[in-house]
Parts: sequence; C-alpha cells; structure tokens
Amino acid sequence: MKKRLLSFLAVGISLSAFSQSEDSLFIRRIADQILVNGKAYEDLRTLTKTVGARLSGSAGMYKAEAWGLKTMQGAGADKFWLQECLVPHWVRGGKDEAMASYPVNGSKAAKKKSLDVLALGNSMGSNKPLKGDVIEVKDFADLEAKKNQVKDKIVFYNYPFNNTYVHTFMAYRDAGMYRGQGPSRAAKYGAAAVIVRSLSSSTDNNPHTGATSYNDSFAKIPAVAIGLQDADWLSNALKAQPVSVMLHTHGKFLPDTLGHNVIGELKGTEFPNEYITIGGHLDSWDPAEGAHDDGAGCVQTIEVLRTLKALGYRPKRTIRFVLFANEENGTRGGNKYAEEAKAKGEKHIFALESDEGGFTPRGFGISGNDQQFAKASSWKALLAPYGASEINRGGGGSDIGPLARTQATPLAGLAPDPQRYFDIHHARNDVFENVNKRELLLGAVNMAALVYLVDKYGY
Amino acid sequence: MKKRLLSFLAVGISLSAFSQSEDSLFIRRIADQILVNGKAYEDLRTLTKTVGARLSGSAGMYKAEAWGLKTMQGAGADKFWLQECLVPHWVRGGKDEAMASYPVNGSKAAKKKSLDVLALGNSMGSNKPLKGDVIEVKDFADLEAKKNQVKDKIVFYNYPFNNTYVHTFMAYRDAGMYRGQGPSRAAKYGAAAVIVRSLSSSTDNNPHTGATSYNDSFAKIPAVAIGLQDADWLSNALKAQPVSVMLHTHGKFLPDTLGHNVIGELKGTEFPNEYITIGGHLDSWDPAEGAHDDGAGCVQTIEVLRTLKALGYRPKRTIRFVLFANEENGTRGGNKYAEEAKAKGEKHIFALESDEGGFTPRGFGISGNDQQFAKASSWKALLAPYGASEINRGGGGSDIGPLARTQATPLAGLAPDPQRYFDIHHARNDVFENVNKRELLLGAVNMAALVYLVDKYGY
Repeated sequence: MKKRLLSFLAVGISLSAFSQSEDSLFIRRIADQILVNGKAYEDLRTLTKTVGARLSGSAGMYKAEAWGLKTMQGAGADKFWLQECLVPHWVRGGKDEAMASYPVNGSKAAKKKSLDVLALGNSMGSNKPLKGDVIEVKDFADLEAKKNQVKDKIVFYNYPFNNTYVHTFMAYRDAGMYRGQGPSRAAKYGAAAVIVRSLSSSTDNNPHTGATSYNDSFAKIPAVAIGLQDADWLSNALKAQPVSVMLHTHGKFLPDTLGHNVIGELKGTEFPNEYITIGGHLDSWDPAEGAHDDGAGCVQTIEVLRTLKALGYRPKRTIRFVLFANEENGTRGGNKYAEEAKAKGEKHIFALESDEGGFTPRGFGISGNDQQFAKASSWKALLAPYGASEINRGGGGSDIGPLARTQATPLAGLAPDPQRYFDIHHARNDVFENVNKRELLLGAVNMAALVYLVDKYGY
Repeated sequence: MKKRLLSFLAVGISLSAFSQSEDSLFIRRIADQILVNGKAYEDLRTLTKTVGARLSGSAGMYKAEAWGLKTMQGAGADKFWLQECLVPHWVRGGKDEAMASYPVNGSKAAKKKSLDVLALGNSMGSNKPLKGDVIEVKDFADLEAKKNQVKDKIVFYNYPFNNTYVHTFMAYRDAGMYRGQGPSRAAKYGAAAVIVRSLSSSTDNNPHTGATSYNDSFAKIPAVAIGLQDADWLSNALKAQPVSVMLHTHGKFLPDTLGHNVIGELKGTEFPNEYITIGGHLDSWDPAEGAHDDGAGCVQTIEVLRTLKALGYRPKRTIRFVLFANEENGTRGGNKYAEEAKAKGEKHIFALESDEGGFTPRGFGISGNDQQFAKASSWKALLAPYGASEINRGGGGSDIGPLARTQATPLAGLAPDPQRYFDIHHARNDVFENVNKRELLLGAVNMAALVYLVDKYGY
C-alpha cells in the first residue's frame, strides 16, 4: 500500500510537473508571438491618431466603434457585433478659461494671470464669465470651518495628491472626493464655483479633468480642475493678497444618445455556455487621445484575441473580447453588458479588465473568494517571467464590476506599474507618444496567459 | 527543558518580529523622506542641463566632478574628496556622416540618402570621406561565410536585438559582440569600415553609440552605429540593388588625462573599518545628457546620503558614496577605487551600484555566496512595498566589479524595470525629460533601505 501510494504520488507529481511545463511552453509561445508580431502598438497609433478623443456621444465615439468592430473582425473573432446602450452626452462646449486678478502693492491697477484649467466632466458651464473672490480650503473639514465665508466665492480645493503612497491609486482615491463631491459641498454653502487641484503628482502644469457628481439638492455650480503649478501659484498668491478669478466654462448635457459596446467572441469547444470576458473601455476624455486611458486596454484586449487565433488555440470556454462604452461618465456599457448576460442566463465565470494604463506589467489584482484567489496565486510562477509577479487581493475594473454584482463573477485587473499613470490621466498628455511599445505588449502577454489558464483549468 | 526552550523560542520570535517592525518603520521613514523631500530629480536636472554630456577627458567631465563634490558636501558627507585616476580621452572630433548611393532603375544617376549614424566610442575616424560598397552580414557565421567578399567593403552587421527576451539586458548581451568585436573581425578580412545595427529595440531612428574594442592585430577601421529605421532601409535597399556608402568620421584618442572619482563618506560608529560602497558612474557618452546612464545612479547615490543624514541615522559601518569616473570606455575609476582600497587594507563588506537607468525599481541582482544571497532574500518583504520585490542571483555593476575581484566583496545592483532602457541607451534621447521623478526617487528609496539593512545587520 505504501509502495502503491508512493507511485501514485509520483505519477501525480509528474503529471502536474508536465502540465506546468506544457503551460509554461504555451505561455512562452504567447509571449514570442506578441513580442515579435504584436499589432497592439500599431492599433493604438491608429486609434489615437485617426480617431483621437472619443467621449460618449461625440463623433469620436462613433468612429471608435467602427474602428473597434473592424479591428475585432480583422483579429479573427468567430462573431463580432455592437451591443446598443444609451449613453450620456456631455459636451465641454467651448474653451475653458480662468483669469486671476490681484492687486499690485501700492497701485490701483490689478495684475492678471491666466490659469490653466479644464472644466470637470459632467459639470455645468458658467455660460457667461463669472467673477468671484477665491477662498482656499485644505479639505472638507476646512470647508466646514469656513462655511460662513464661502457665499458667492470661488472655493479652491487645494488638497494635495499624497506622494507617500507608493501605489498611486491610493492617492487618487484619497484625493478623488474633492473632484467628485467638492462642487456640491461648496454649493451647499452658496459658493459660486469651484477650482479643484488636479488629481496628479506630475511635474507639469496640465490640468486633469474627470467626472464630477452633483448632488441634486444644491445648485450645479461650475467646476474646473487646475494645473499643479498654477494651483501652487494661486495658493501662494492668496497668502499675500486677495485674488479674484474670472471663470468661463460651457459644459452641458445634450440628450442621451445611442452608444455601443464592441464585442468579439471565440466560441468554446467544451463548455460553450461558460463565459470568460476580457476588456477595456473605448470612451476617453475629450482633451487628449486616451492612449493609456484606455486605448491601451482596448488594443491589448484585441491583441489577446489575435494571439489565440494565431497560435491556433481553440478555447474550451467561450471567450468574449469587449470594448466597453461610457466608462468615464456613466458606466452604461458595463451595466448593459451585465444586464443582458443575466437576462440571457449566461454563466460568466471570470472577467478581466485592463484599465490602469499601458505601462510595464507588475501583476494582477484579484477579486473573488479564497479558493479563486488561491488558484490565481498558484499561477504566479507561470506569469512572473513576463512581469506579473504580484498577485494581490482586490482588483477588477469599472466595466466588469457589474458582472460581479449581478452574478458574483470573480474579477481580475491587470496591474501595471502605477508610477506614471497620474502624470497623464485625463490630461492633454495622454497621447500615443507616452506609451512604450514593449510595456504595452507585455501587458497583453500577461493578459493572454491568464485567460489561457482560466480557460484551460476553469476558475 | 521543553518549557524553557519554548519560552526561549518565543523571545527569539518576538525579538525578530520587533526588529522587522522596527526596520519596516525606519524604511517607511526613508520612503516618506525621499518621496516628499527628495532632491534627486532636481539634482538630475542640474547635472543634465547645466553640465550635460561628460565623457572622460572632456570639459564636461571636469564640470561634473565639481558639481559632484559640491553636491556631496551639500548632502552632508562627513568627508568628501576627489580620488585621482588617469582616464582615456577619446573624442568624436566632428560630425559623423554617412551618405548612401544606389542606382535608380534604368538611369545612370545615383540616388542618395543620408543615414543617421554615430561613430562607436573608441573608434578611429576615417578622417577623409571613405567610400565603399556595403555588404550585409547577419552575424559572425555569415561574415565567415562571406570572408572572401569583404575586402575594401563596408561590412553592415544587421544582427537584430532579440525582442523575445523579456529582460532586455539579455538581448543587449546577445547583440553586444557585434559592436565590441565587429570592427576587428571585419578588418581581419580587409574590410574598409563597418556599420553596426544599433543595440536597441526602440521605435525611432536614433543611433546608439557605445564602446568598441579593437584587436591590435588588425587595422583599426572606422565603425559607426546606425539607427534602426535606416538599418531596415539599408537592408531592404541591398535586396534590390548594390548600395555604396560614403562614410566620414573623426574619432581619435588624445593623451590620457587626469579624471577623478568623487567620494563622500559617513564614518561608522561601531565598525568604522568595515566599508559599504554605494555608487553610480559620473561619465556619460557625448551625444546626450546621460540622464538615465548614469546621471540617475549618481543622484540616487547622493539621495541616499542626504536621506540618512536627514533622518539622523548614524551608521555602524563606514558608508562610501561614490560617483565613479570612466565607466563607459575604460572602467579606470572603478579599478582605481578597488586598488586603493586594497592597498590601504580597507575591508569592503558590500557594494551596491545603480547603473541600469532611473526607471521604476523591481528588485536587486545579488552576486555573492549562498549565505549572502539568503540574507538579501530575507529582506524581500521589507523592500517589496517599495517595488523591489524581485531578489535575483547575479548583479552588481561595472564600477564595483573590481572590488569583487580584488577582495571578494559581495555586490548588488539595483534592478529597475528594463523595458525602456535600450530605447535611450547611449543615444541622443537619454535626456532629463525621459526620466520620471517618482520612478527615480523610488529607486533611491530601495537603495537606501538595502544599505540601511546591510549596515545594521552586517552582510
């Protein structure tokens, strides 16, 4: 018995070693294919340079959908289609302007300085120029302390991005509430407008936009993000004398319009009714090309499809490649995808998103139960040679989040190195030139490897 | 007995847990200090923008040494000095030029195309324009096969950088011999000059220089690196018709001259006769600012000094902060440092170099015995929160290598993410603008943490 058990164990071990080695060889083939023949970088060039910005409802959105469908087809999807969803249609409406005025010592003439600002996404424009004295607040506690002084003023939230967080997304979460809730919390006390310090630790002066979220109980006052250098200037200027700002923004909502998720599919050969979803989001803010956010996730998703086809891989499960609509100001695409999946009784066993930039991969964030986390962790040694050596708890993406809520689908998010993301996030410099080809491709390698493992072993 | 042993173990465990927690807190202080108050980025701006290129023997070298000494002093070194060493003095001597000529179908007139080239470091100029027909070889085996055809020709080594290596330094080592040995191996068969495909996988056309090494048995023929796009053009053109190139380079050696290692020191309080060295190299190739190679390593080294002082840390062992001379074309600084250490009977217990660029840190490469590797590995959990989660065997740096040879000093090399290094290595675009502040600072955080641990626990 002892002998039999030992030989049984030996067979077990050698089978497992064989699988690991087979997996390791297949992942090596994935990597060679992508690092040598990968088209994600050229796809990204096309998306950024011929489509460009593609906010929900814009002309760019329609061009991007057409590009996505054609590229999904070219990459070899068995099926490809557009999934309709109503999307919000916010427009910036014009050039955002902010001009500071402040008295010069001993003179009646005011000095002026133009500030680099961008209206926050979803914010309502001032329409005509709006002038107000600026009052700086450090944070919401400071706002509460000064609540009797803010009426008719422009509240300047100068809450800094906390550079001591090594993981920059923690700093983003920490400071993010000033962009999200800042306008309405200031409006509650009668403020005329708000200026929010950009959510960034960059060394330049580009303002970083992004969605704000009004509370319907209060006036929807104009709100802009200001570049970091101008934020520092304004704060210093306010220490010396009063400063007023003339603000002019034009944001508004047009009626909701039809947008689409772009979907490609490889049909499963053994378990066609088990679905694996991999995706990024196709929409991007208007001031730039959305190269990292989230052009990168889109072209990586298509690269995974292309690579599985090129290697002749026939998946056991049905794999969906999805370019989601409207992540930036509504998540309507992600919601629609999950709703329709539920309505059709589709069983979604796993979803993976890339929406943290096309930077060098460091790992995956995993949301799921202990068993699922252990399974993902057991693949670490297979992924580490390609950079994804950090398998951490927590992760996914805004667009696949609804699947977790509607049918408890376990999620994963590609975790690229986060140091440069908030240099470019929602700013003018989120352009193709700031994406590195090898970093982008290596992200796709790790995504393809993880999808292969989930497809092969289930999850 | 059992009880006593258990309580002894319990004390041991809690002491060890206490040390880990104390270390983790101190490293957190290091990180906060550097991420908030770090000056490495501004130091790098000064070094790159006011000194610029600083090849051995150049005026830039002297300016860089003066900058280094002053900055070392400002950072709080107990002692700081220049250590003399003779360095080679190679000069480019003029603008490198290459003009391709090739016949046009059915016409006698030749078409011309200017190629972007840079003479290899240490190479001898053509002095007057040199014209030759180009013969392409894939590798040295191909050269041997064509050895009877290369007389008076310009040999074009078109060996590609192997993109399937995830660790790009492997590709560099793989292709590096064509830059190092290519000229003499072609000269052996009578070639007039060589053109080497740049050691890079970049998407631009910048040529990448770097040292070549002539074999004194053969003629020292001119040798240039060519940009990747021009290399591909040349290879394609040669498929269609013969191509000749007019090459004009001007390289030469002036007499050796005095250069210096710049050294700062913090005296050890318990074991002053045990030395820890941390450094980078101060010299850089002439076409750019040497921002990543190796301005980054220099300013990170000084940042570690500044940080230990700012935190009031008094080292047990003597720590040396060294900006080495002449890494690029001689390693004379590193050799001199090790020789003098040996002559003075200094006991060097550990040396750390940063010379793989100022990119986001991923880990350390460790050269030493099993025990030393195990010790470094035991610190992984302390370093991982700051990015250095990969502790691998093999690593160090050219400048500290001589210490390993003269007194078996164990070495470590900071291992930043390698994907972008060969985009800029020895090329015009190795400039300040291509360094990211947080990535640079995080490298310094991990270096300071490792030096602290080695100082505290010995090695």
